[in-house]
Amino acid sequence: MRAEVVDVIDVADPADPRLDDFRDLNSVDPRPDLPTGKGLVIAEGVLVVQRMLASRFVARAFLGTDRRLTELGARLDGVGAPFYRVSAEVMAEVVGFHLNRGVLASASRAPELEVPQILDTARTVAVLEGVNDHENLGSIFRNAAGLGVDAIVFGSGCADPLYRRAVRVSMGHALLVPFARAANWPDDLNLLLSREFRLIAMTPDPGALTLAEAVAGLAGERVAILVGAEGPGLQERTMRAADVRVRIPMSRGTDSLNVATAAALAFYERDRLAP
Amino acid sequence: MRAEVVDVIDVADPADPRLDDFRDLNSVDPRPDLPTGKGLVIAEGVLVVQRMLASRFVARAFLGTDRRLTELGARLDGVGAPFYRVSAEVMAEVVGFHLNRGVLASASRAPELEVPQILDTARTVAVLEGVNDHENLGSIFRNAAGLGVDAIVFGSGCADPLYRRAVRVSMGHALLVPFARAANWPDDLNLLLSREFRLIAMTPDPGALTLAEAVAGLAGERVAILVGAEGPGLQERTMRAADVRVRIPMSRGTDSLNVATAAALAFYERDRLAP
Repeated sequence: MRAEVVDVIDVADPADPRLDDFRDLNSVDPRPDLPTGKGLVIAEGVLVVQRMLASRFVARAFLGTDRRLTELGARLDGVGAPFYRVSAEVMAEVVGFHLNRGVLASASRAPELEVPQILDTARTVAVLEGVNDHENLGSIFRNAAGLGVDAIVFGSGCADPLYRRAVRVSMGHALLVPFARAANWPDDLNLLLSREFRLIAMTPDPGALTLAEAVAGLAGERVAILVGAEGPGLQERTMRAADVRVRIPMSRGTDSLNVATAAALAFYERDRLAP
Repeated sequence: MRAEVVDVIDVADPADPRLDDFRDLNSVDPRPDLPTGKGLVIAEGVLVVQRMLASRFVARAFLGTDRRLTELGARLDGVGAPFYRVSAEVMAEVVGFHLNRGVLASASRAPELEVPQILDTARTVAVLEGVNDHENLGSIFRNAAGLGVDAIVFGSGCADPLYRRAVRVSMGHALLVPFARAANWPDDLNLLLSREFRLIAMTPDPGALTLAEAVAGLAGERVAILVGAEGPGLQERTMRAADVRVRIPMSRGTDSLNVATAAALAFYERDRLAP
């Protein structure tokens, strides 16, 4: 039985190098996705740590208070990574700010998935272009998980979904919803077309079909929902590859919705009508 | 003609007391809604400043660069408030950080509206309880404006919708969408019931009607959409006052959506089916 219990190590010295995965989180390694970065994924809080444990990202270490260790409890059994137990004060000193979620986990970045891999069993995917804000990206993952989207494909110009803030805002779903980057954009939309996905492109164009009309016509089909950046929207080349352009009916005098909100409405409409 | 042009005053000294409305925005007056606060509303950026000019909030002063003055152009004609024209450097020194948007406007808080006032011509209203996060509040105003919600009623425990961050995230719609606070909560729901509003309460309860079912049955009626805080949701007393409890169908294993996203889905569904 002993071997199945997580290895708990009490640490009192904030300078202990074993805690380096969690050091100065706000200032160190702003680009963990680059070759120059540390390449770590950080989960914050009990719920997100649990989701990391359920994901393809293998935990390297935990840093947390005794209270959060207790809350995680048996979920840590059999996890082959140390739990560094610290006081709230030591934790704040290590991470560089007070973290009231009280527990962190680090994992190495797993190898990225390929687009064909994530399309295999998917019926609904989101395709993002130019979504370069971590908070919006995190929200899109959370909305995707809640509203029946099976996978996310990244076109050009998107931020890193494994960035700490994106993971946090996603409530950990950035670790669970499969995603892959298109190597050739927008040509890789052909990977979707060849698998009989119908491509729905979101646009503010008042001449486009309404979301409800478009989605109702595709209930039995595989569907990819293409979403562009707030403001510029999808590039014209991307638009041209789409089967149908759809808009969210909006009140007069308003500009577009936030990109994550617009995506949520599309996911909802699709999920409502999908078989 | 001269009297119709805004009064432009060049200021080179960041300590000039005429700029005090805009001083140290991040640290001064965290609670402008309290009697101890300065009682100002701040609009940031050309678009939000324009919306302030279209709102019931009367501008007191503007602070901005020459470039933003030019962009606002004729929209400032006839506005009886000075435009303090400064360099980007002076502006940063006054507000305490670099402000990309390059222009600010201040206004005094207009007297608050009363609940009966904002219900008069409304067909769809949102009713919020415990929404104490400025960003969520701002998003809800933006979504309300875009998706056909006529007014917003605040129950207990909500943050200040005129706080700077809420106004910014709302894209200025916090200044335009009429709102009022219920003096007695939740008893003031009777003000809605007596005007024949049907009250739809959002809940994660899997036994509730789906959003689509509930809203379809109320297409011809006045509707109030009740939204509670993420996590605890609506209080039981509020729930009991509702005509119908509705849920957003969610994928298994996910928690609730963000409160502003959940509200957007309800607004969208209502707007889609409202006459």
